[in-house]
Amino acid sequence: MPPVALRPAPELAVGQWFNTPSPLTLAALKGRVVFIHAFQLLCPGCVAHAIPQVQRIERVFAGADLQVVGLHTVFEHHAAMTPVTLKAFLHEYRLTSPVGVDLADAESGIPLTMQRYRFRGTPSSALIGRDGTILHSAFGVEDDLALGARIASALAAPIPAGVSRPAVAEGCAGGVCAVERAA
Amino acid sequence: MPPVALRPAPELAVGQWFNTPSPLTLAALKGRVVFIHAFQLLCPGCVAHAIPQVQRIERVFAGADLQVVGLHTVFEHHAAMTPVTLKAFLHEYRLTSPVGVDLADAESGIPLTMQRYRFRGTPSSALIGRDGTILHSAFGVEDDLALGARIASALAAPIPAGVSRPAVAEGCAGGVCAVERAA
Amino acid sequence: MPPVALRPAPELAVGQWFNTPSPLTLAALKGRVVFIHAFQLLCPGCVAHAIPQVQRIERVFAGADLQVVGLHTVFEHHAAMTPVTLKAFLHEYRLTSPVGVDLADAESGIPLTMQRYRFRGTPSSALIGRDGTILHSAFGVEDDLALGARIASALAAPIPAGVSRPAVAEGCAGGVCAVERAA
Amino acid sequence: MPPVALRPAPELAVGQWFNTPSPLTLAALKGRVVFIHAFQLLCPGCVAHAIPQVQRIERVFAGADLQVVGLHTVFEHHAAMTPVTLKAFLHEYRLTSPVGVDLADAESGIPLTMQRYRFRGTPSSALIGRDGTILHSAFGVEDDLALGARIASALAAPIPAGVSRPAVAEGCAGGVCAVERAA
Repeated sequence: MPPVALRPAPELAVGQWFNTPSPLTLAALKGRVVFIHAFQLLCPGCVAHAIPQVQRIERVFAGADLQVVGLHTVFEHHAAMTPVTLKAFLHEYRLTSPVGVDLADAESGIPLTMQRYRFRGTPSSALIGRDGTILHSAFGVEDDLALGARIASALAAPIPAGVSRPAVAEGCAGGVCAVERAA
Repeated sequence: MPPVALRPAPELAVGQWFNTPSPLTLAALKGRVVFIHAFQLLCPGCVAHAIPQVQRIERVFAGADLQVVGLHTVFEHHAAMTPVTLKAFLHEYRLTSPVGVDLADAESGIPLTMQRYRFRGTPSSALIGRDGTILHSAFGVEDDLALGARIASALAAPIPAGVSRPAVAEGCAGGVCAVERAA
Repeated sequence: MPPVALRPAPELAVGQWFNTPSPLTLAALKGRVVFIHAFQLLCPGCVAHAIPQVQRIERVFAGADLQVVGLHTVFEHHAAMTPVTLKAFLHEYRLTSPVGVDLADAESGIPLTMQRYRFRGTPSSALIGRDGTILHSAFGVEDDLALGARIASALAAPIPAGVSRPAVAEGCAGGVCAVERAA
Repeated sequence: MPPVALRPAPELAVGQWFNTPSPLTLAALKGRVVFIHAFQLLCPGCVAHAIPQVQRIERVFAGADLQVVGLHTVFEHHAAMTPVTLKAFLHEYRLTSPVGVDLADAESGIPLTMQRYRFRGTPSSALIGRDGTILHSAFGVEDDLALGARIASALAAPIPAGVSRPAVAEGCAGGVCAVERAA
């Protein structure tokens, strides 16, 4: 069975970034694996399940060639979830990976990146491979075991030709990569 | 840093098997990834945490080239955890992968396979790579995210030369392997 | 609305006791509140939910005028759940309140006390008031908040006339009774 | 041992109410049991543990003579937790009992009611008896079993002389009070 043609990951449209000295673009991240998690700070499922999972990803894959990116995709209660409140939220929930405020679309109320990724609500996520294609996308929170496997499979893929290897620290999360490299 | 030399996985010493028509040996499983989980049916941590995790592994990696093997490593309350009770336990907990009764060692009370793997208690586990080496071993239950990553990393390794590829169904669990193969 | 007439709690039929120097009878417990929990040691719902709840009851109501009584109501896998295995189970799960082995009924396979209380399976429970009536009976595990309220309500009832007050330690669990007594 | 003299519950100082057509005062609630929970919408422990417990209290004690009162006690990130954001929070978390915004104290940054109750942070709670005294106060989330028992004990206390019985529906939550009344 030939591999399914995967959709190229659309570029991010972000108005304001937190937890990063300079804006991120997928173009610049090519060659690395990227995990995008879309959330709203007043979304109960995000706060109870998705954000803790992102914290576990940050911890387990610390040192791995994975870039975690949060997207605050506000599509309701716009006046209640401003960047001022988001900043305090990120502080209280100890999220340390970069988070961008998805650019508002005045017409629809649904922000631009959320539209481009066809996210159906929050929480949602997308896993982007080293070649810049969307490997997997989900609405709701996934099983940790399956998600850990998906991320590791993506990390095991070779870096595409013509992409300069990004500078990352040697060694991986909790011995995870040691296995892979010894093989 | 050169890869650490990994220890070859010792063969299993099992007196009685459940959930399999014929006994398993690691020799015959070479070329596949093997996840061994050691438990006792009256061990609270096994029942509360390890067994449910094994059930999740069975589900998430169904169809993957992974063999899950349970080991009933009774090292205390021997008269209370007989094969009769184990059989009913496996039925009630809906474990479907093969489970072997670790061979008793009359002298020490600690069964033989448990000794060979240097398991310090229950629950314990060992992940064995396609080349028959122990990739990781743990006492206690691990994080699902890290475990999923470890198993997927082991599955991503090439089948060693000289090992005939075991017959397994194409495709993998919940789309996990699709990602890897498309890459 | 007149109170519903409550059914008198049937006497226990127990073949063997653990965690008590002498057999218990409901007749002798009259005047106290009694919480009976019926379980089987290989019942997943009992082990995952009911037994931990009993442990919380033992802790929160330590010192209160409450007698917790376990009943091992084996109605399946009889050969797998013998008193030898039960004894090790009670040790491993650190249950400290008395547990009786419900008397087998050779004809039906369903033990006698279980029949008398019309328990539909395991886990089940019955709350018996100071006057010896069944205040509440349930199949499955109940919400802690509702159960705590039920037990406290039963404890707040006056000791029936003609019943000599049983000797119990003054003071109650975690300040729970302090409130009641100050009122 | 004579009962400890309990402290009278200080009156609430609230700037704005949600989920109630008219402001609440403890003076008007005398004769009923009151459960006050203090929270901040960006406090992780509140959102993960205290708010779900309040929802369980609302459900289990629906119909009981208990008034649940929320207090939004903002003592940090003031600009991030405005009433606009609180309103959306209450909608998303489906809290239906009255919630008041604790009055800010310009000098200390710690709101007035929070000071009066000497709450050390969020989440905190106070249980107020029918006679208007504080029966119990806690910082952090308590065990459901103990909390259910405390509320039921408070409900079992007689209504003080001179207090006109408040109009409440007969019968109680999930049969909880039926037991108490039949006794």
